[in-house]
Amino acid sequence: MGRIICAGLGPGDPDLISVRADRAIRAAGHVAYFRKAGRAGQARRIVEGMLRADVVELAMEYPVTTELPFDSPEYIRQLCAFYDGWTDRLAELGQTEDIVVLCEGDPFFYGSFMHLYTRLQGRAEVEVIPGIPGMAGCWNVTGQPITWGDDVLSVLMGTLPEDEITRHARQADALVIMKTGRNLPKVRRALDRAGKLGAAWLVERGTMPGQRIVPLASVDGADCPYFAIVVVHGQGRRPEMPE
Amino acid sequence: MGRIICAGLGPGDPDLISVRADRAIRAAGHVAYFRKAGRAGQARRIVEGMLRADVVELAMEYPVTTELPFDSPEYIRQLCAFYDGWTDRLAELGQTEDIVVLCEGDPFFYGSFMHLYTRLQGRAEVEVIPGIPGMAGCWNVTGQPITWGDDVLSVLMGTLPEDEITRHARQADALVIMKTGRNLPKVRRALDRAGKLGAAWLVERGTMPGQRIVPLASVDGADCPYFAIVVVHGQGRRPEMPE
Ligand SMILES: C[S@@+](CC[C@H](N)C(=O)[O-])C[C@H]1O[C@@H](n2cnc3c(N)ncnc32)[C@H](O)[C@@H]1O
Ligand SMILES: C[S@@+](CC[C@H](N)C(=O)[O-])C[C@H]1O[C@@H](n2cnc3c(N)ncnc32)[C@H](O)[C@@H]1O
Repeated sequence: MGRIICAGLGPGDPDLISVRADRAIRAAGHVAYFRKAGRAGQARRIVEGMLRADVVELAMEYPVTTELPFDSPEYIRQLCAFYDGWTDRLAELGQTEDIVVLCEGDPFFYGSFMHLYTRLQGRAEVEVIPGIPGMAGCWNVTGQPITWGDDVLSVLMGTLPEDEITRHARQADALVIMKTGRNLPKVRRALDRAGKLGAAWLVERGTMPGQRIVPLASVDGADCPYFAIVVVHGQGRRPEMPE
Repeated sequence: MGRIICAGLGPGDPDLISVRADRAIRAAGHVAYFRKAGRAGQARRIVEGMLRADVVELAMEYPVTTELPFDSPEYIRQLCAFYDGWTDRLAELGQTEDIVVLCEGDPFFYGSFMHLYTRLQGRAEVEVIPGIPGMAGCWNVTGQPITWGDDVLSVLMGTLPEDEITRHARQADALVIMKTGRNLPKVRRALDRAGKLGAAWLVERGTMPGQRIVPLASVDGADCPYFAIVVVHGQGRRPEMPE
């Protein structure tokens, strides 16, 4: 019986993949990865040059991305059918072969693989190799620690309503806001209302080619790439010599 | 001129170190690491068997840990002198040699190295290699995704006052509570008040030898090891086929 191994790829730089995931990827006879139809796919791009010459590639192309609202019945129906279909294919192929599923960042942290993971329970042996979450790559490249002492860190999605983002942003010391993309103007307004816009950084494609790090307040464009994270560093307790 | 390279070690399993950090550690002529006086030190233990035979080891032993309250002037004085002293030694040695500083998890995420990092600015070239944060290793070994859809994740320290932990625990969907150790009874009470005790897991030494994963409600001991994290998984939005 084969296994399904989900390898966390980390933030984007292939050198930041774990030793265990690196080994699994280089040895893989079958790799699978999610991508938008018609795109190369970020996960696939990260492992460029690492795969065996005879590898069999399974591109799992999302049937929809942003064309339909994510809470519409049609979106949910299409996405469920997509996850169910790939669960069947992987479970069947996994009877005889090891399959390495490539996932950006850490697979258990807002990752698409989780939808296959829950469906595969009882149907295949599944191993998940953790990865450096994208956010850790992003705060690393800002060159500043994200949290000190007993700072509270909250991780928010840019898809949340503006009032929710504002409320959580007021209460946390350090912030990470993911899925910024087309939500950028809303995120900017929410951080402004929470009094944190001046301390916020926008990191686009952290550790990837085309990386950009800018103060959020200096960005007035209406959108940014899919791989973009807003970071507000905590300033918490640290031992300072008394004056 | 040499460099100071801080290598994130990840949660504990040496196989979860990044390819870049692994390479730096194996090549190092000098390694430095924090530890409690008289202990082997967790960071040093993780790299056991990986170091060069002729490596020079610098054990940076904390002058105090829990003997003094962390906000007392004496604690602050001793800790500052400790960080200042090691900054001087590393900056001087770093003129001629590369030094690899070993740090558990991700160095910029509540790491002790940050106190050297800020002090070393302008005195040495410093590179920080991110690592898988300890919490990601911990939620991985629970075998359940930590966040879905637009779940809010808050990371809290067990050193916070009980009311603060309770308040943040009520508002977030997913939770990570670090520095549990002797704060375990307080963390337990706070989660109970927030209605989340039943969903909480205690992970001791995640991905390390001696790993233990138990429902927090089943633990009535007053303390737990230093390497222990409480995790509450988010249950957020995910596409389910309508009935
Ligand atoms: C569906 S989530 C997947 C998260 C992934 N599992 C992780 O651990 O980072 C996708 C979001 O992650 C963020 N992201 C991940 N890696 C990133 C990077 N290297 N630079 C900027 N944003 C990144 C972006 O906000 C993006 O919208
Ligand atoms: C000073 S913080 C350092 C955090 C580290 N820089 C990181 O990224 O995980 C130490 C705390 O991390 C948590 N921790 C780190 N690794 C852990 C592991 N493998 N298992 C359990 N707890 C861990 C514990 O709560 C511990 O008290």
